[in-house]
Amino acid sequence: MSVTRPPASAPGSTSSLKAANQHRVLDALRDAQVEDDAPTQAELARVTGLAPATVSNIVRELAAAGLVDTVPGSGRRGSAVRLSSRAGVVAGIDFGHSHVGVAVGDLGGRVLAEERARTPDTLGHEQALALASSILTRLLDERGPLRHVGLGLPAPVKNNVVRSAAIFPGWDEVDTSSAAEAVFGVPVDVENDANLGALAEHRQGNGRGHSTSVFVKIASGVGAGIIVDDKLFHGADGTAGEIGHLTINEQGPMCRCGSRGCLETYTSSEHILRLVATTLPDATLQDLVTEATSGNVSAQRALEDAGLHLGWALASLVNLLNPSIVIVGGEMVSAGDLLLEPARTGLRRHALDAVAQTPIVASGLGQRASMVGAVLLAAERTELVSD
Amino acid sequence: MSVTRPPASAPGSTSSLKAANQHRVLDALRDAQVEDDAPTQAELARVTGLAPATVSNIVRELAAAGLVDTVPGSGRRGSAVRLSSRAGVVAGIDFGHSHVGVAVGDLGGRVLAEERARTPDTLGHEQALALASSILTRLLDERGPLRHVGLGLPAPVKNNVVRSAAIFPGWDEVDTSSAAEAVFGVPVDVENDANLGALAEHRQGNGRGHSTSVFVKIASGVGAGIIVDDKLFHGADGTAGEIGHLTINEQGPMCRCGSRGCLETYTSSEHILRLVATTLPDATLQDLVTEATSGNVSAQRALEDAGLHLGWALASLVNLLNPSIVIVGGEMVSAGDLLLEPARTGLRRHALDAVAQTPIVASGLGQRASMVGAVLLAAERTELVSD
Repeated sequence: MSVTRPPASAPGSTSSLKAANQHRVLDALRDAQVEDDAPTQAELARVTGLAPATVSNIVRELAAAGLVDTVPGSGRRGSAVRLSSRAGVVAGIDFGHSHVGVAVGDLGGRVLAEERARTPDTLGHEQALALASSILTRLLDERGPLRHVGLGLPAPVKNNVVRSAAIFPGWDEVDTSSAAEAVFGVPVDVENDANLGALAEHRQGNGRGHSTSVFVKIASGVGAGIIVDDKLFHGADGTAGEIGHLTINEQGPMCRCGSRGCLETYTSSEHILRLVATTLPDATLQDLVTEATSGNVSAQRALEDAGLHLGWALASLVNLLNPSIVIVGGEMVSAGDLLLEPARTGLRRHALDAVAQTPIVASGLGQRASMVGAVLLAAERTELVSD
Repeated sequence: MSVTRPPASAPGSTSSLKAANQHRVLDALRDAQVEDDAPTQAELARVTGLAPATVSNIVRELAAAGLVDTVPGSGRRGSAVRLSSRAGVVAGIDFGHSHVGVAVGDLGGRVLAEERARTPDTLGHEQALALASSILTRLLDERGPLRHVGLGLPAPVKNNVVRSAAIFPGWDEVDTSSAAEAVFGVPVDVENDANLGALAEHRQGNGRGHSTSVFVKIASGVGAGIIVDDKLFHGADGTAGEIGHLTINEQGPMCRCGSRGCLETYTSSEHILRLVATTLPDATLQDLVTEATSGNVSAQRALEDAGLHLGWALASLVNLLNPSIVIVGGEMVSAGDLLLEPARTGLRRHALDAVAQTPIVASGLGQRASMVGAVLLAAERTELVSD
């Protein structure tokens, strides 16, 4: 269930087998913690497929290292095992064009405290990190020690560096992980925000149980995170999932990416508000949804067209990737079925019949998805044991 | 390097470790055989990461079972190990709308003999299998025993069954693997033909060394096979890779899939020949390419437009999947750069700048790609040792 795990250096050897088995037990404890469950050693053996004696040895070693606590069982139930709070906490930070979300979580990836703040969209990366750091310090309070930070950005990210000046200017070509490690003093993993949303939905949201799934984030930008074989899929250079820049109409509006008629120019919140400005000047997204709900035909039409175009791009995606579910998040999902129902129609019109019924559902985690994903990333990347 | 390997039933146990190590050695021998190489035990230890003593034990067991031969080394070079010819052969069969390709290969996936025949496009699946069987019998000659068959079909395949009446009528809803096993008397694995092409290019062609790559087959139909993490990617139901049905123009020509303006209606050989019929009636694809090469502007324009549209669809694919290479095969690739150069232009116009330079190259295996992939599939799926 790990996002990416460095390959063991000596596959098939006894020592790498031991490290792999330790990780297996820790991953199972993380999964259990999400469910608020503390498994017995017998249950751990069943879930991991390891021999009871092996599990018993591993739990004893992890307890000695202060990473797990064992809690006496009651009746015939053996003692339960859980990740220890003494083992520390992690943080997840989600930067957007005009917000930052910060959360502290336990090593199981559960959020313990969180805060969201609006930011000016001209914020450079140094000020943004300083702001996140001050929020984090407040949230950490008595909690600690901080072990790892996960950080999300709304741009293609390759080896911790933003790879598009056009998409997220304040961070272009910045070695984000080094800059953030200097601020937070712990290891930092950087990831595209839609990828983090996909991770969050897969582990804790509507993507649970789907080994191949897609999360599409629709806000001022549009991007997707792809889960393949229960892991985040990055492609060769880390830029996979850029659904917002699929061409819908090659003579369509200019897009900030330099191409024309991209999905983003039809479906982003920014575009839709510009589209309805003639009839609803200065409307916010919430105003637009309220108007559409109360029968305003231009508001309804704007959302319907955005949904049909979204469905068209999702058809390309399901034709190519065949996920078992598509989860839509980001602020645009506040439009609910006003957006998703035409998206389903668009999917049916444009996808091969074999995949035209792929479910399109709203995110259960809402605007928190990327921040929750950043906490999960940090929890899963925390090195609890040295291999 | 295996396509899909059934999960070991008891992960982390000693017996599953032993089976995994045996497979690791066999996979390394298969890879070496592709290079016409027979590694020493020391080389096997280095490639597999296993201890020399472990490799030595495994080789002794496999030799005793007649699966590998050891050949005395010369000078300071230790004895070499190769898959034994006594261990049997496999077959690969590639069915198209108007052809069948049949090959016999060794357990390393190397083709030993092959034959290609034209077929009427009304052929039902029973006649098609009978024809392939008669060719295979001739090719097997003295070779044997036949261990496994890989079979490719130009349609979405889900659990060995064709999932589209519209795409490949003679086989719709047929349990292809059972039907073929009744004819050939050995286990049969069925796979989409573009997926087999992707496998062949990844193992033996221009996709070597690319852990994320895409093979696009352009003939009377258009489909893609996707390699992720050095393995064939199938999606949730096995239908991933249907690039031919990406919508380019929602008011475009009706497609056989029931949608409109699919890539296939702009880029398939069938479409292009129909398009140029006004100026080049009854031209074959070869005629068209010859005309274009000698300066016929309508032939050049038809290929250029097909290429630009191909590039557009490839842009969707590289935006979503970020492969490190795109390999184009199928009969249309005989047009070479007359098709691929405009495809590169289309990619640059429609893809995000981060991925706009993804290489687009012609298949090195040509029309043989799917058949070679079928042999590789059969070789990799052959159960040499029981877990």
